[in-house]
Amino acid sequence: MDITGGVPSSYHLSDNLPYVHKVGKPPRQKLCTEIAATLKETFFHDDPLRPFKDQTKSRKLVLGLQALFPILEWGREYNLSKFKGDLIAGLTIASLCIPQDIGYAKLANLPPQYGLYSSFVPPLVYAFMGSSRDIAIGPVAVVSLLLGTLLQHEIDPSNKEEYLRLAFTATFFAGITQATLGFFRLGFLIDFLSHAAIVGFMAGAAITISLQQLKGLLGIKKFTKKTDIVSVMRSVFTAAHHGGKKKRKFFWLPAIAPLISVIISTFSVYITHAEKHGVQIVNHIQKGVNPSSVNQIYFTGDYLVKGFRIGVVAGMIALTEAIAIGRTFAAMKDYQVDGNKEMVALGTMNIIGSMTSCYVATGSFSRSAVNFMAGCNTAVSNIVMSCVVLLTLEVITPLFKYTPNAILASIIISAVVGLIDIEAAILIWKIDKFDFVACMGAFCGVVFISVEIGLLIAVAISFAKILLQVTRPRTALLGKLPRTTVYRNIQQYPEAMQVPGILIVRVDSAIYFSNSNYIKERILRWLVDEEEQLTKNSQPKIQYLIVEMSPVTDIDTSGIHALEELHRSLQKRDIQLVLANPGQVVIDKLHASSFANLIGEDKIFLTVADAVLMCAPKTNEP
Amino acid sequence: MDITGGVPSSYHLSDNLPYVHKVGKPPRQKLCTEIAATLKETFFHDDPLRPFKDQTKSRKLVLGLQALFPILEWGREYNLSKFKGDLIAGLTIASLCIPQDIGYAKLANLPPQYGLYSSFVPPLVYAFMGSSRDIAIGPVAVVSLLLGTLLQHEIDPSNKEEYLRLAFTATFFAGITQATLGFFRLGFLIDFLSHAAIVGFMAGAAITISLQQLKGLLGIKKFTKKTDIVSVMRSVFTAAHHGGKKKRKFFWLPAIAPLISVIISTFSVYITHAEKHGVQIVNHIQKGVNPSSVNQIYFTGDYLVKGFRIGVVAGMIALTEAIAIGRTFAAMKDYQVDGNKEMVALGTMNIIGSMTSCYVATGSFSRSAVNFMAGCNTAVSNIVMSCVVLLTLEVITPLFKYTPNAILASIIISAVVGLIDIEAAILIWKIDKFDFVACMGAFCGVVFISVEIGLLIAVAISFAKILLQVTRPRTALLGKLPRTTVYRNIQQYPEAMQVPGILIVRVDSAIYFSNSNYIKERILRWLVDEEEQLTKNSQPKIQYLIVEMSPVTDIDTSGIHALEELHRSLQKRDIQLVLANPGQVVIDKLHASSFANLIGEDKIFLTVADAVLMCAPKTNEP
Repeated sequence: MDITGGVPSSYHLSDNLPYVHKVGKPPRQKLCTEIAATLKETFFHDDPLRPFKDQTKSRKLVLGLQALFPILEWGREYNLSKFKGDLIAGLTIASLCIPQDIGYAKLANLPPQYGLYSSFVPPLVYAFMGSSRDIAIGPVAVVSLLLGTLLQHEIDPSNKEEYLRLAFTATFFAGITQATLGFFRLGFLIDFLSHAAIVGFMAGAAITISLQQLKGLLGIKKFTKKTDIVSVMRSVFTAAHHGGKKKRKFFWLPAIAPLISVIISTFSVYITHAEKHGVQIVNHIQKGVNPSSVNQIYFTGDYLVKGFRIGVVAGMIALTEAIAIGRTFAAMKDYQVDGNKEMVALGTMNIIGSMTSCYVATGSFSRSAVNFMAGCNTAVSNIVMSCVVLLTLEVITPLFKYTPNAILASIIISAVVGLIDIEAAILIWKIDKFDFVACMGAFCGVVFISVEIGLLIAVAISFAKILLQVTRPRTALLGKLPRTTVYRNIQQYPEAMQVPGILIVRVDSAIYFSNSNYIKERILRWLVDEEEQLTKNSQPKIQYLIVEMSPVTDIDTSGIHALEELHRSLQKRDIQLVLANPGQVVIDKLHASSFANLIGEDKIFLTVADAVLMCAPKTNEP
Repeated sequence: MDITGGVPSSYHLSDNLPYVHKVGKPPRQKLCTEIAATLKETFFHDDPLRPFKDQTKSRKLVLGLQALFPILEWGREYNLSKFKGDLIAGLTIASLCIPQDIGYAKLANLPPQYGLYSSFVPPLVYAFMGSSRDIAIGPVAVVSLLLGTLLQHEIDPSNKEEYLRLAFTATFFAGITQATLGFFRLGFLIDFLSHAAIVGFMAGAAITISLQQLKGLLGIKKFTKKTDIVSVMRSVFTAAHHGGKKKRKFFWLPAIAPLISVIISTFSVYITHAEKHGVQIVNHIQKGVNPSSVNQIYFTGDYLVKGFRIGVVAGMIALTEAIAIGRTFAAMKDYQVDGNKEMVALGTMNIIGSMTSCYVATGSFSRSAVNFMAGCNTAVSNIVMSCVVLLTLEVITPLFKYTPNAILASIIISAVVGLIDIEAAILIWKIDKFDFVACMGAFCGVVFISVEIGLLIAVAISFAKILLQVTRPRTALLGKLPRTTVYRNIQQYPEAMQVPGILIVRVDSAIYFSNSNYIKERILRWLVDEEEQLTKNSQPKIQYLIVEMSPVTDIDTSGIHALEELHRSLQKRDIQLVLANPGQVVIDKLHASSFANLIGEDKIFLTVADAVLMCAPKTNEP
């Protein structure tokens, strides 16, 4: 029963000379090796430097530049057929984005041209630095709403000059946050917003936006003649939208429907001079390309801190959307997207955007889906969209003067309704009730209280779930499956029989300071419960307590103390503590702390079956 | 291979007709039952209501009162022999606490009588409500230092009136915090301060206090004649302290040494009128018992918030000490201490203390150890100590007028030096290097920056460790141990052989949103590495990827998505995904999400051995 490792002898169940396989004690890793391995797994788990191995210096330089600007890599293999797909996709998403941009800018309480600016520069920057081939960049509804809400807490939107400056400051810091997270490979922090909480948060934001827009829509219902036209437009638009959804072949229908509706309605209002009769119109979009806004960002003073805080929040929400989109399409088309590299690209995009009169841009769900279905191949579709927006800014903006706000409101509503993912919510309900509580909590927080509180609830619930996982790990009593040597959870396998005189407990987690005390108390409670039952039924007492430790991936000082206290408590009751199947790391620490000596090295076994064999040979049958 | 459960047939290794044991699908638990079970494990895991089962109403009332005031329970069995032990222990800790109290009050920048007040009322309250039999209550060095540091950030100590009021406010809220945590059974939050970080924090605080006191001591070195007496006192004291440590029989020697030193030095200073020659003395301690201080607590205004914040921090540190002491001695004497009940007792004690001119009191390591060794049996030792302090306050305080500060400084230094636990630090270094980093980080933070920053570092490192555990779980490649059906980690068991054409990966954690993406990418990386190796050695490709899921205690929607994406990626490479030994909860969710259908119900096995048998029967040998 020596566990210092050695040559195993033969072992056959049907013999009655069981030889217990030795528990291997692995060679002690050097401290440096251990730290290096941990750092690698934490920050570089996707091995980004793999392609750099065994390359010449100049090659490494080229690879480095390509890593920073992926366009240098896929640009070399660009051809005409790919351009055809990107051209069509680009034109399609451009027609979708132009009316949306004007609407989303209003959500953020900004003049409409800033939405168009944010569809011009950011996609260009992304095309050079980003890795996703299907994402469509631009302002999005949820981030625009979030930004608008947070900004107007600080400055009244009627104070246009300062409001704009704060918006640029927030965008700048959003970009800084995103780039920093990506650069320091802290991307995994985004994973902490549980998927369920995000589903709830998005749905709540969508409801909030829709209700806001409906108010605007309903405001013009007094004027029947013109509203007829508007209502007609709305019905046409919705019909086209639904029609397109049903037939994938006509995917482009819901994509260009917004633009068509805008064109038709603008024309109608222009002809009938409906604006003189009360129909709210856009009225004025500044012509011309993005002016520089570097000198408008607050680099000092009170607003710097406020802009920083808003920027961090908006930046992280924007990241969550973009990364989710990037991963989804990458999985569908089976290519890899490096999350941290994406964050650097998105961050740089927003930093440059903040200096060219753009506000926070990110990937848009609806536009990326359209981009994907329209057959995009690379990020050139974003470049095409940029060019169309540029054209619009330089030439077409005066034509939007007569666009009714109602149409824009309809477009926004139909865009955000897609964010309400009922199917996902139902799936969440079916799979994990706690997840569903998180989902509903975030949803209700956004709808009934405010966007920031909803977000806070989403984050808090995500953390509570992690806390729960960490502090209350599962434990299970094991029993032997008849005619096997397999020990399984007696609650899951009713046919599993417990061994008389032996209590077998499996601990399903690493034993750290956060749960060591709980685990010790829980095991003792299993024991007390069992002994109560046995005394009732006049059965023999427990003599051995075997702890199955295969799920215990690690143990720290608090864990060792807990085991020592458990051993002491058991000794007082004349029960022997036995350990089965401890992992590599745990064996190391049991020896380092001399716990292995305390308990006796012959009390540590490879499997539960071996432990039972040694403890109670009479009662055990193979 | 049907996994809907059923009657198992016989299964014998030596037969060549293996029958695979069915994976049991447990009955679906009702939502309410599941939530109730989770709540119970989280908040009531130690089953505090067990004694209340099957009792009459009046009995339940009695049990309830006894739960709130444990003195009603152990008081009934009190006898003379127990009182003897408690009397001796009480007198011993009283002699130790009186000089310490005067010194600790100075640490908190408060007049010396407040230290004595805090050794009068709080121990009395604790004796009625607390559960630990060995803890000694009163002001302690670390909390006094922390309180003093935090308070003087807000108000200058020379502004005595307001400083005192803020101290009482902080104490009040410390008590509220403690009682609230205990009442809502949130005691597990205390477990989040890792033991290693606390060791470092305490050591750092001890060094800080000692250095502060040394300054005072050195300040009088100019006057040789008197310092000789002081030095002599110091040496006598230290000698007595060490002598007592060496022989346990003389434990009382280091306990009463401080008081003896104080008496001798006071007498010397009085006789020689040393204070006229520059020896700093205590000078004045207010006579009389605690005055009421209810009207001095800030219930409104700016200082309310400041007091609240300081109170929360000090309260939680005080809790950590007291709970650690309570658990240690309970484990030694083998009785149970309900952590949450203790918190309610400590909280009440501080709330009442704040209204009777006391500041934050908690359990003291050194005094509790002396209490234990002096033979205490119940909390009556605290009552005895209280009575002695009362006597001191009413009668003896004028005698302390001539006590030199230097002696008090020596007493404090010798008390806190015991907080520097070098052995614990060495053990931490041996067992867990990350823990050691936490320890050193907290220590350096306190010593080189400040107490609050050191505390912050301790908390941050504790959380970082939890984050790491949660986001970067371990995975391992498994191989078969020769001549067994046991599959183990090939890194730990070099003799374990991998099965050709099959890759077996074990995931050592629940799969949640916080790590699902990492797990998927890690498994794919294992695959890529393996395939590289196989191609190099011209070996057959991987056809099956078996995921051993016994450590996967739970899975949520993100985890299911990750499995689906993994399945998709593997399908593209013509590799079949197979699951082995999923737990009860996981099976449930695999079915609810239809993933079991997606992968095929015949691809989920009870053990890895079964899976390998089915996947590659030719290559497998029993």
